[in-house]
Parts: sequence; structure tokens; C-alpha cells
Amino acid sequence: MADHDSSLPTIAAALKEARSVVIGAHVDPDGDAIGSVLGLTLACDLAGIPATPVFASSSAVPGSYGFLPSVNRFRRAAMLEAPDVFVALDTPSFARLGEAEPLAHSAGRVIVIDHHPDNARLGAMSYVDPTAASTGSIIWNLLPWLRVAANSDIATCLYTALLTDTGRFSYQNTSPEALRTAAAMVERGVNVQQVFTHVYENRSAGALALIGRTLSRITCVQAGSVAYSWVSSDDFTQTGARPEETENLIDQVRSLGGVKVVFLMKSSGDSVRVSLRAKADADVGHIARSFGGGGHKAAAGFTWSGEADTLLPVLLQRVKQTLS
Amino acid sequence: MADHDSSLPTIAAALKEARSVVIGAHVDPDGDAIGSVLGLTLACDLAGIPATPVFASSSAVPGSYGFLPSVNRFRRAAMLEAPDVFVALDTPSFARLGEAEPLAHSAGRVIVIDHHPDNARLGAMSYVDPTAASTGSIIWNLLPWLRVAANSDIATCLYTALLTDTGRFSYQNTSPEALRTAAAMVERGVNVQQVFTHVYENRSAGALALIGRTLSRITCVQAGSVAYSWVSSDDFTQTGARPEETENLIDQVRSLGGVKVVFLMKSSGDSVRVSLRAKADADVGHIARSFGGGGHKAAAGFTWSGEADTLLPVLLQRVKQTLS
Repeated sequence: MADHDSSLPTIAAALKEARSVVIGAHVDPDGDAIGSVLGLTLACDLAGIPATPVFASSSAVPGSYGFLPSVNRFRRAAMLEAPDVFVALDTPSFARLGEAEPLAHSAGRVIVIDHHPDNARLGAMSYVDPTAASTGSIIWNLLPWLRVAANSDIATCLYTALLTDTGRFSYQNTSPEALRTAAAMVERGVNVQQVFTHVYENRSAGALALIGRTLSRITCVQAGSVAYSWVSSDDFTQTGARPEETENLIDQVRSLGGVKVVFLMKSSGDSVRVSLRAKADADVGHIARSFGGGGHKAAAGFTWSGEADTLLPVLLQRVKQTLS
Repeated sequence: MADHDSSLPTIAAALKEARSVVIGAHVDPDGDAIGSVLGLTLACDLAGIPATPVFASSSAVPGSYGFLPSVNRFRRAAMLEAPDVFVALDTPSFARLGEAEPLAHSAGRVIVIDHHPDNARLGAMSYVDPTAASTGSIIWNLLPWLRVAANSDIATCLYTALLTDTGRFSYQNTSPEALRTAAAMVERGVNVQQVFTHVYENRSAGALALIGRTLSRITCVQAGSVAYSWVSSDDFTQTGARPEETENLIDQVRSLGGVKVVFLMKSSGDSVRVSLRAKADADVGHIARSFGGGGHKAAAGFTWSGEADTLLPVLLQRVKQTLS
């Protein structure tokens, strides 16, 4: 029987009983996924629980997280046997476990810990707290129940999780609770500046050149309320930037003051991927859906089959309608 | 007689007795200066103390801080009469009070509140706490002694002070105490995301274009351990960026991973202003001093009389020596 509302003490007890634990998170892992998995792995070490972190993707750990303690303990799923307990962190559904999905299915039981409200709660035990700023914060609260006092390694992993999932303490989820948890983590020996440098000052020369091109091309229209820029396949060839390095490119465009809606067009082959952001009250989710895409009010995207040149006037018209 | 170690209760009592208070900070004010002055002004309102914020520069309040509550109450010093008490916040010496310096000299007494260890403590009362992450944090701690409960306006001003002086909670001064103070401020009704957008997503189109040019020109040398870029007077003319908008340009260059020393050369007329940053253990203060400049280990600068072309080989050689 699935228990959709297991408590942290119940989960801690289940972990302490486990003969073997594998801890995983979603594919294309972000800081919260990687930091939470490593933080819980290190906590299991101290609690005497045999735990292995599994990496859900065939890709390498992103370089920004290569500094995290025990990052080299990550294993590919194919190397691991079915564990007694599989812990799925920060992962809405089993399908998002990627290569680790079969391990979850073959495990004795699955424990789900997450802070996304839409989590499918598919574990035998599930703990989903949408008020938590990050999954890392929940793991932090689990430590006392495991009778583990956080050392600087655990604190560094979980701080990285919290830092990245609050957008460096800038998103709406930066609650007093999130900041107090961060304070407690730093107290355990996190080098705040070092974490910052590793995570945010780790761009490749190609990525910087690509940001440079994107910013040089910014165009403001509609009395400064709308701004956009674009990148093409040629930019990647010429700068050496990798496609995954465009992920936060739209945030650079967003940093323009006075603007209400920004968008970025990434052309490749005969299609254009468009990311939209609303800085004011505008609903860019609505715009994206009208082009067959998705997202929410403040952040959305869609793919256009065709050239950027044909898309631009149509999209600008749609943005104008939304703003008026 | 000057009391170099007045306590917060003593300072609160002195403020409560004052018939008129003028509150100022250093010229070219940053977020801590502006946020602290406005936060204390608003606290004085609630405590029934007649207080006026004075702006030390002839320039306007930087646009990023134009959203702060009561920002339109700032007065130029020439408009004000000698007050009973002048409060100098975040200001190392009277000379740095700019236009407001005469007001401090003519005031009944001066109260100094700061967190910089090198503060000259020239007030009749001085409270200097180098362990505080910002002057805003000290004002926050002063509130209970003024018998003032922070409202969201006061919290927003002082949070902005703390946020900016910790570099968005990334510098070494991001202590557990700093994060707990931030938590208490947010609890009083700070809109974290809105403050972030006003302060950090408020660049001009010209500034973004200038960042674009700077990033497009980044050159990595010495096996990727050194990177540099440059801007010229032409860039300002062509992009429309204002000279003061280059202030954080070096941080963009810094965001390159793997690099130990970065520098930025700003040419104007027949001289070059150079900013240096060390990301690893290198001492760029040493390099800057060897060119007649100054600064500390991690951040320094100097001015070169001559062309950038003649400076570059000399500077690169000096950096190479420092790194070996």
C-alpha cells in the first residue's frame, strides 16, 4: 500500500533498516538534484546505511557541480543491482528517473522525497513538501531523524541544492525558512564564496562569447517594453559554445531594465526554439500556448517550424496584443 | 570628548532626544549607503524623530534604487540647516560625506555607524562593527532600541543594503548571522523577487551592448589561467552606455571558469584604467601596486598613462610572474 504522506521519522526509520540504498534524481540534473543526492548519500555514510548515488543521464555531471564532495561516487544505473530501497529525489515521476527507472521498479521499495507540488507520489513512501524551497532543504530536515549532525561536506551539497533552486536567493521561494536553513548550513562550514565561484563563475570561453553575441544583438521595440535577441547554429560553430550552455541565456536578456516581455530565438536547421519571460504582469504562457508551446505566466517556450524571419513579425504582434 | 565605542542603546537614546536629525552616507552611494539611510529615516518616522535623508552627491539616485520607499525624500545638503544630530552611515571619514560634509561639521553632534574596520570613528558617538555584513544590518539591530517594529518599507530598504553589500549573498561576509538577518527582514514583508529585479535586472540597453562587446573580446592566455578584455571611448559613443555602467563589467569577465586572474582595460584619451580580479590565490593587489595603483589581494586597479597596446605585454608578463 502506498503511503502518500510518510513523515520524515518514518522515512529515516525505513532507511536505517535498509540493507542497501540507491539514491537517484531526475535526468538532466540541476543543482538541487545533484546536491540532494550527494548530501543524502553522505548522511547515509554517517548513519551507517550502505548507499550509492546513481546518475540518471548518460551525460557527465555538469562541470559547475564537479567540486561537490563525493561527486565521483556517482554510478551509472547499469552498474548497480536492484537495491533494498530506491530513494527518488526531486523527481516528479518514475519516467523522469531516466536510466535509473528500472532500478526503481526492481527495488524492494521506493521512497520519494520532493518539493514539486505536481509530484506523482509513486513511492511506497512519499514525502512531498511544496513549501520547501528545495529538495535539499527537506534532506536537511531529515538529518536529525537519521541522527546525523551535518558536517561541512553534507552542508556544502545541500547548500548548493538550496542556492541553485532559489536562483541565488532571488526567486519567490526565498522564504524566511529558506534563508534560515541556509544560515544553519553555512554555520556547518560551507564556503559560500567558493560554492558561488564553482557554480556561477564557471562559464566556458565559448559560452561567454555566445552571451556576448546575444547581448550585442538585443533589439528593443514597442517603446522599450519588449526586447529580444537570437542565436543561430553558426554561433555555436563559431564560438565553440555547447547547446546546453544557452540554458540561462534568456536571463541575460531579462536583465534589461524597464522591459515587460523578453524573448530569445534559437534557430537550428529549419526550426526555431523560442524562450519567453515576463518581468511584469504579462502572461507569456498564453503566448507560448497560442504557438503550440507551454509554460507558465512568467516563463514559457515553444518551437516554430520555419525561419526566424517569418516568425518575428507574428510573434511581436502577439506580444503587443498581450501587453495591451 | 569622542566616545569611540558607543552602544546601540546609547545611540538610540541620543536619536530620541534630538530635535532634528539629518542622515547621510558616502558619495557615489551604493545599495548599503542608500538603503541604510532610507531605512533609518523611516525608523525615525515611526519613533517620532524628525529626520531628513541627505544625498551626498550632485548626481541622481542610481536608477536601480529608485524603487526604494521614501527615495524621493532625499535632499541636497545646501537645502538643509545645521541639524541637532548628523548621522553618518557607511562612511569612513567626513571627507567622504561629499556635499554633506559641512552639515556634519555644523551639527550639534555626529553619530557614526559603519561596518568598515578602517572607519576613522570621528563622531561624538561611533559604532563600528566590522563583523556586520552591511551597515543596513546594524540599523536593523538598532530598531528594537528605537522601540520600532520594522514594517515592510523599512525591511525592504535594509534588505537591499544587505543584499547588495554581500554581492547577492555570495561574498565571504555572507555569515550565518547575515542570512538570519535577511530571513527576519523577509519575514517583515520584503518582496525578494521584486527587489532583485529592480536592483539587478535594471541594465540600460547601452550597458547590455557594452557587456556584449566586452564578452565578445575576451582573450584567454597562459593555458587558460589568465583572461582579459577591453573597452574604449568609442564603445561608449557607439553603445550609449554611461561610464558608471562599467562598474561591474569585470564580474562578467570573472564568470569564466578555470581562470585565476582576469583584467579589464578601459581606454579613454591617452590613459588606460585597469581593473584586476583574482579568483584563485593570486595577489592582484601586488600587481596593481607595481603599476602605482592599489587594492587588495582579490580586487585591485591602476591607471596607465599611455596606450593599451603598450601596456598589454608588460601587464601580461607581470601577471605571469605572479602566478608562477
